[in-house]
Amino acid sequence: MKKNIVRPDILPGFMELLPRGQILFNNMLDIIKKNYESFGFLPIDTPIIEKSEVLLAKAGGETEKQIYRFEKGKNDLSLRFDLTVPLARYVAKHQSELSFPFKRYQIGKVYRGEKPQKGRYREFYQCDIDIIGSEKLSLINDAEIPAVIYSIFKELDLGKFTIKLNNRKILNGIYEEYGIENKAEVMRVIDKLEKIGEEKVEKELLDMNLSNNTVKKLLDFIMIKGTNNEILGKLKALKVQNELFNNGLKEIEDVVKYIRAFGVDEDSFTIDLTIARGLDYYTGTVYETFLDDYPKIGSMCSGGRYDNLAGYYTKSKLPGVGVAIGLTRLFYQLQQAELIKNSNDVLIKALIVTFDEKDMNYAINVSNQLRENDIVTQVYCENKKINKKFDYANKLNIPYVIIIGDDEVKDKKVSIKCMETGEQKTVALSEAIEILTV
Amino acid sequence: MKKNIVRPDILPGFMELLPRGQILFNNMLDIIKKNYESFGFLPIDTPIIEKSEVLLAKAGGETEKQIYRFEKGKNDLSLRFDLTVPLARYVAKHQSELSFPFKRYQIGKVYRGEKPQKGRYREFYQCDIDIIGSEKLSLINDAEIPAVIYSIFKELDLGKFTIKLNNRKILNGIYEEYGIENKAEVMRVIDKLEKIGEEKVEKELLDMNLSNNTVKKLLDFIMIKGTNNEILGKLKALKVQNELFNNGLKEIEDVVKYIRAFGVDEDSFTIDLTIARGLDYYTGTVYETFLDDYPKIGSMCSGGRYDNLAGYYTKSKLPGVGVAIGLTRLFYQLQQAELIKNSNDVLIKALIVTFDEKDMNYAINVSNQLRENDIVTQVYCENKKINKKFDYANKLNIPYVIIIGDDEVKDKKVSIKCMETGEQKTVALSEAIEILTV
Repeated sequence: MKKNIVRPDILPGFMELLPRGQILFNNMLDIIKKNYESFGFLPIDTPIIEKSEVLLAKAGGETEKQIYRFEKGKNDLSLRFDLTVPLARYVAKHQSELSFPFKRYQIGKVYRGEKPQKGRYREFYQCDIDIIGSEKLSLINDAEIPAVIYSIFKELDLGKFTIKLNNRKILNGIYEEYGIENKAEVMRVIDKLEKIGEEKVEKELLDMNLSNNTVKKLLDFIMIKGTNNEILGKLKALKVQNELFNNGLKEIEDVVKYIRAFGVDEDSFTIDLTIARGLDYYTGTVYETFLDDYPKIGSMCSGGRYDNLAGYYTKSKLPGVGVAIGLTRLFYQLQQAELIKNSNDVLIKALIVTFDEKDMNYAINVSNQLRENDIVTQVYCENKKINKKFDYANKLNIPYVIIIGDDEVKDKKVSIKCMETGEQKTVALSEAIEILTV
Repeated sequence: MKKNIVRPDILPGFMELLPRGQILFNNMLDIIKKNYESFGFLPIDTPIIEKSEVLLAKAGGETEKQIYRFEKGKNDLSLRFDLTVPLARYVAKHQSELSFPFKRYQIGKVYRGEKPQKGRYREFYQCDIDIIGSEKLSLINDAEIPAVIYSIFKELDLGKFTIKLNNRKILNGIYEEYGIENKAEVMRVIDKLEKIGEEKVEKELLDMNLSNNTVKKLLDFIMIKGTNNEILGKLKALKVQNELFNNGLKEIEDVVKYIRAFGVDEDSFTIDLTIARGLDYYTGTVYETFLDDYPKIGSMCSGGRYDNLAGYYTKSKLPGVGVAIGLTRLFYQLQQAELIKNSNDVLIKALIVTFDEKDMNYAINVSNQLRENDIVTQVYCENKKINKKFDYANKLNIPYVIIIGDDEVKDKKVSIKCMETGEQKTVALSEAIEILTV
């Protein structure tokens, strides 16, 4: 009846963690979720499989090639490749039942058949928030998004980070002012500044038939640095006449004001005129977030403001602003940089062991009471030597072992051993609960 | 540039909830997860896409037809159709890095291309726990599983429920005792008792060429009722000589003893000899769980003990015991039976509204302080009439609105309105926090 042994492999480009890694991953996921909710973002959960005609209404080029697309019966199906297209479809579908502004978060897996390489995944978690307005959406929302990012990365405790923001109207306005026509392409080149450096950007811009003078002005412009107030001052001092530019400047000034109101440290956000976000659907504020000491990790969290979310599915105008954390890739990068604190992988607080199965009833009873006190507890049920039971606690990084022997049963006590210090004492259960609750 | 409007539909057989429903769904998910963890089950997360040769190593017949299977490049891929096969593959793959007994939970979506019908989904959540031993696994684990189920369904607060348990050795033993050869088929028929009734079961058994006398004895046997102790007494009184039967009887006796030790109410679990679990990989204890007043919902949570988890992927013998909750279907059924308490859909505790945008700074500051006190708070940022803002709170079922006007700003106070009672008062922020923390 038994077949041959099949190699239990998974596909390349798919992340699968051991339980200790999974606990750390889930801790991050929980922090993100809790912070999203704390600002009033509501959960949604869309199907992973959708009709290809719906998911690919907009896609094309590189994205389309990466899609997992297949037929089942007569249906042409695709796996979602981000959470933005499903959001657009969701809002269009349920428009009459939703209240606007519609603040939603979604955390889930998405699929892209990219060439697998280090840190690139074909299945990965996206953690998205967006605020969608009906017809209009206040600029204050553009300031709330960085406030959410700020509270998340503070709690993740990965070291000093900076939320960089810019406004596409400022960029498009200055291009107009400087007489640059192929704006989208220029923006794509500038967006690479962090990656390829100033010299190469200059060269690429010159290759685009921009005059030396224009390229110089452009580079001077995007290199404007200083405190947020200094940058705002310098931008004003340019006395640009272009209306789009001035709208953008007014917007970023307001956004900065409200970011401060949300209590974000001045140290943790900065206007950065090099941030462009290559994708062309952003129309106003754009964001990227970096660890100050690990710029190579790249942006941990990016997004921005767009004019119209769901034009492919509805005639209603639905402006929005949002941001996404690509958690799978980020987790990989943080592990590589050794920024994940492995000591946080404790889930089970106490392992209960007996010398003999006859004491199991008492041991189980102790476990019930620990759980009633919200202490995650495992009873070790197997008939093994006591050393093996301690090994097990060590391997699972369980901080306390509770030992039940005949004396403990007779005296209605427990012995509790701290695995880090080796200290062991026999105490009343209430005292053990106190130790475990610290 | 804009294409035609695409209908924003999803595929039949896929559940997609509005945010209020999603909050209720997530509440259930969180309760399940918390209880799984509280017993020391560790999280894992396996890919949704795996190699077909791996996922389908065992499958065949009905299951194989339902698989979402496709090619991408040169790879033959399938979407997982349960979480048990991925667990088997996971344990075989990571065997040397895991500690046994390996207690894991996994909550995730699985895919079956079933004919869509009411309450049947093609994409649905499974919430699984399993305890896997290396070579051996103590029977106490068979008692812990019902203890976990018990703590979950108590907390879910869906009304009186009963965990029914049986042991396949008892069934197989009694078949041997009665000289029945086609055990698997008989078990499948008996498993339908709840669905089709005693008469039809009797007829189907007679159609299988069993003698009248055998069928009568068999039906008498599975109809043995009473308290757990009475049933155990009656089973012993049968004085069956068959060894398998007597092993099973000893097992279920021990399992009952330990279930009691875990503090499960005698009222909430019962030996039920009609429970067989049609699938043939169970070898010992089997479970099903029903709501006493809603038997039509069917088993909410089923599982059992198996001898060898991963024979297709490894030569190691890995016995286990586990249980699964099919949450998507269960949620649908509970909604149909109106057992989901809609009042639990509150996520946002307070909505902050202003009469004028100039008070926004103060409003945002209030929101920061509420969030610091773990109160989920949304600031209403749009420039709308005050009535619209209250409508918004009502639609989202937000229990309190905090109103900021010029007086509140001047006096450093807030006005807080309870949306249920309509009561409104102007208080210090600390007092509002107290009201919101209750």
